[in-house]
Amino acid sequence: MAADTSGLEISARDLRLEQAFYGTIIHSVSPKEVQILEKGLLLIGPDGKISLFREHVEKSQVAGLLAHYSSGAGSLRVRYLERGQFLIPGFVDTHNHAPQWTQRGTGRGKLLLDWLNEITFPHEAKFADASYARKTYSSCVDGFLKQGITTASYYGSLHGEATKILAELCLEKGQRALVGKCNMNQNSPEYCSDSSAADSLAATEDFIAHVRRLDPEAKTVTPILTPRFAISCDRELLSGLGKIAQANPDLPIQTHFNEAEDEIALTKTLYHEFSNEADLYAHYNLLTSRTILAHCIYLEEYELDQIQQRGCGVAHCPISNTTIGGFMAAPIREYLRRGLNVGLGTDSGGGFSSSILDAMRQAFIVSKAREVATEGADEALSLNETFYLATLGGAKVCGLSDKVGNFAEGKEFDALEVHTMGADAGVIAPVEEEDGLDVILEKFLMTGDDRNIQKVYVRGRSVKV
Amino acid sequence: MAADTSGLEISARDLRLEQAFYGTIIHSVSPKEVQILEKGLLLIGPDGKISLFREHVEKSQVAGLLAHYSSGAGSLRVRYLERGQFLIPGFVDTHNHAPQWTQRGTGRGKLLLDWLNEITFPHEAKFADASYARKTYSSCVDGFLKQGITTASYYGSLHGEATKILAELCLEKGQRALVGKCNMNQNSPEYCSDSSAADSLAATEDFIAHVRRLDPEAKTVTPILTPRFAISCDRELLSGLGKIAQANPDLPIQTHFNEAEDEIALTKTLYHEFSNEADLYAHYNLLTSRTILAHCIYLEEYELDQIQQRGCGVAHCPISNTTIGGFMAAPIREYLRRGLNVGLGTDSGGGFSSSILDAMRQAFIVSKAREVATEGADEALSLNETFYLATLGGAKVCGLSDKVGNFAEGKEFDALEVHTMGADAGVIAPVEEEDGLDVILEKFLMTGDDRNIQKVYVRGRSVKV
Repeated sequence: MAADTSGLEISARDLRLEQAFYGTIIHSVSPKEVQILEKGLLLIGPDGKISLFREHVEKSQVAGLLAHYSSGAGSLRVRYLERGQFLIPGFVDTHNHAPQWTQRGTGRGKLLLDWLNEITFPHEAKFADASYARKTYSSCVDGFLKQGITTASYYGSLHGEATKILAELCLEKGQRALVGKCNMNQNSPEYCSDSSAADSLAATEDFIAHVRRLDPEAKTVTPILTPRFAISCDRELLSGLGKIAQANPDLPIQTHFNEAEDEIALTKTLYHEFSNEADLYAHYNLLTSRTILAHCIYLEEYELDQIQQRGCGVAHCPISNTTIGGFMAAPIREYLRRGLNVGLGTDSGGGFSSSILDAMRQAFIVSKAREVATEGADEALSLNETFYLATLGGAKVCGLSDKVGNFAEGKEFDALEVHTMGADAGVIAPVEEEDGLDVILEKFLMTGDDRNIQKVYVRGRSVKV
Repeated sequence: MAADTSGLEISARDLRLEQAFYGTIIHSVSPKEVQILEKGLLLIGPDGKISLFREHVEKSQVAGLLAHYSSGAGSLRVRYLERGQFLIPGFVDTHNHAPQWTQRGTGRGKLLLDWLNEITFPHEAKFADASYARKTYSSCVDGFLKQGITTASYYGSLHGEATKILAELCLEKGQRALVGKCNMNQNSPEYCSDSSAADSLAATEDFIAHVRRLDPEAKTVTPILTPRFAISCDRELLSGLGKIAQANPDLPIQTHFNEAEDEIALTKTLYHEFSNEADLYAHYNLLTSRTILAHCIYLEEYELDQIQQRGCGVAHCPISNTTIGGFMAAPIREYLRRGLNVGLGTDSGGGFSSSILDAMRQAFIVSKAREVATEGADEALSLNETFYLATLGGAKVCGLSDKVGNFAEGKEFDALEVHTMGADAGVIAPVEEEDGLDVILEKFLMTGDDRNIQKVYVRGRSVKV
């Protein structure tokens, strides 16, 4: 933690404070450790960064401290959190198909490749229409922000223009996002395919340039290379994407990796020169420390070593992994044991839910299944661990943990103000008089929903519609 | 189906109609078949019963039909359902611990007996206080009604007075309920135990008499015998409860059955004279066609035959089965194959969610796990089947399928008016222009929540707060 807790007598800094929060502040400091600070104080500068974080401040000291650190220009808004209210870091959704926002929940139980062909491709084809894209993506970004997803790593459709609209909407509505034009020039119907590798690459370069003009310093929106998966891309396309990746060392990459048995079998048939997916993506320079690998269910030991050595991130999507195709429990305990970066993905719409809270619950359930299957060798995830995956773990996967994921001083203020009590508390388990802060947090994480997320902040700006 | 679909020229009946609904009406007619009627007409009498159900009526015919069948006294309210709006039967929650309403979500992952001792018993002890019980049960009944649970089979705590309050609140708020004073005179801490078998039995008889005075014809509230499980009851208590069951052939019974490995092992130690739980409960006359058996995870073939022959109902609780203790997938496909009555239970608070929609989704996921484990022999549940379990299946388990579960003429009108579109549609997947009624239903079942349940009717009365 960067917060100074040595005492209150530290010298004044030249801070022009804009917002302050006093009360219960909760965040992860490691995979296993969640700090629950009853008397925390956070100060947020006009740049949206956390300028001061104190772990323990008596209420009587707050006004004095703020007078000391604020510019005194009267622009300071102070929020005193009451019982049942607390701040947590915003949720990070490491794997999300924006075009599938409206198809969530349909086609459950189908095998992955059937689901793509029967449900998904016909739906994604609609994003050739820019006005449809604007309407749908607007609803999508609002819908995820409302649920506390302050950072999303989005797959767009194959359409460059529609995906530009998605990036513009993220910027306008204030959602931190990695946005990718989806590359797919084979094995999907012609109406839902890039017309050639060259066209797909050109649209990608055009998209990247567009997003960089929109947000030159990538303060909010970052382009991300998005080969759907090897099945969807021919060798020329993968090769071209690898070259873009090499030429742009700041550019993140995302793809699906060892997701389903039918997918793995077809990949091996199409790319017979590789004996596994790790070698395939590595060959095309797409398996890097900037790569987000969605799913990672069936990894050979060799592949596990490869993604560990290369520092790839894992987007764990427990809801889609148990509703599309079979019931698949990714070996998350092993990934954490090896120190890999792991986060959660809603995988909306393969995942029916658009809530990271649901993803956290399902991650626990899936890890229970794995605990039973391994006779206890892979212990189930703790509440602290699933909270970590949803916040700091996800930020690491997205390469953004220097900016977000918890409330360390100097990070940007991406946060949720949670209210667990009151008339509009939804269906959360009622908080009782004797409940400690740990129990209140547990009740929110296990029984709360977006109605308990009263405010959503990205870079210090309130963004919940 | 009792509905007359032979034509419109049927003779007038002496019906004094009170409410009519025209538009999309959806219900189960068998485990596999869901009827989705785009132009259905339902008429509800002042007694809350469905007096007329037509499967297909043109809009131009509605007014004429209603004029024909209504008393003409001007007391008829007609509701025309618009696109995205439909009626379904109310949800039946076949297993629910009312005192655990506020402890939902806490203590996940603990083994069942540890969870009872560490979380549940200390919490249930609070219901010795009648004012606490009134406050908590009021919130509980409101909370379940709001989520469309029109029928609940409730375990109370051991406290007779508190459980009377629960029954009174169900009656007052209009929730159809089976309510049981929980019997438990051993293996729980003294502060959370009946003081003796005799006291437990006396409190039970007193409770039954009280509920029968409240609602003599059991129109809304029915008492139910509720031995927690054999671990909690000594031989004298089980024997006494069996005698009450025999003396009251209308009285339903509920208990936990083969729920968890630690529970089964301890039961066999305590009741060493029985080699399985079926023989144990049968010996005490508690294994009958009126019995609701919660969980039913680990049944021996012999036990399966026993519960089949005796016509017991199964309350499947997929959420608690995967969060308390291990990951346990009950063999629901086999139960359905054998024609057993099966319904869903939230098992709130062992289940963190109080939503039958969540229970339906988790039932699918758990059945997927079982499909994988049995290499396809036990096929996963279809959407139609989970809908059936949540409605008609649950009604059968509760012995109420002559009254509720679907919209057959003569049944009572327990229904949900679902709205999938509009400003307050929550986080449901947006309905698109081309979506058929089956897709709209699927979106609601997989991505909707209580915000989409606009109205809740029990016995024709609107009861959602």
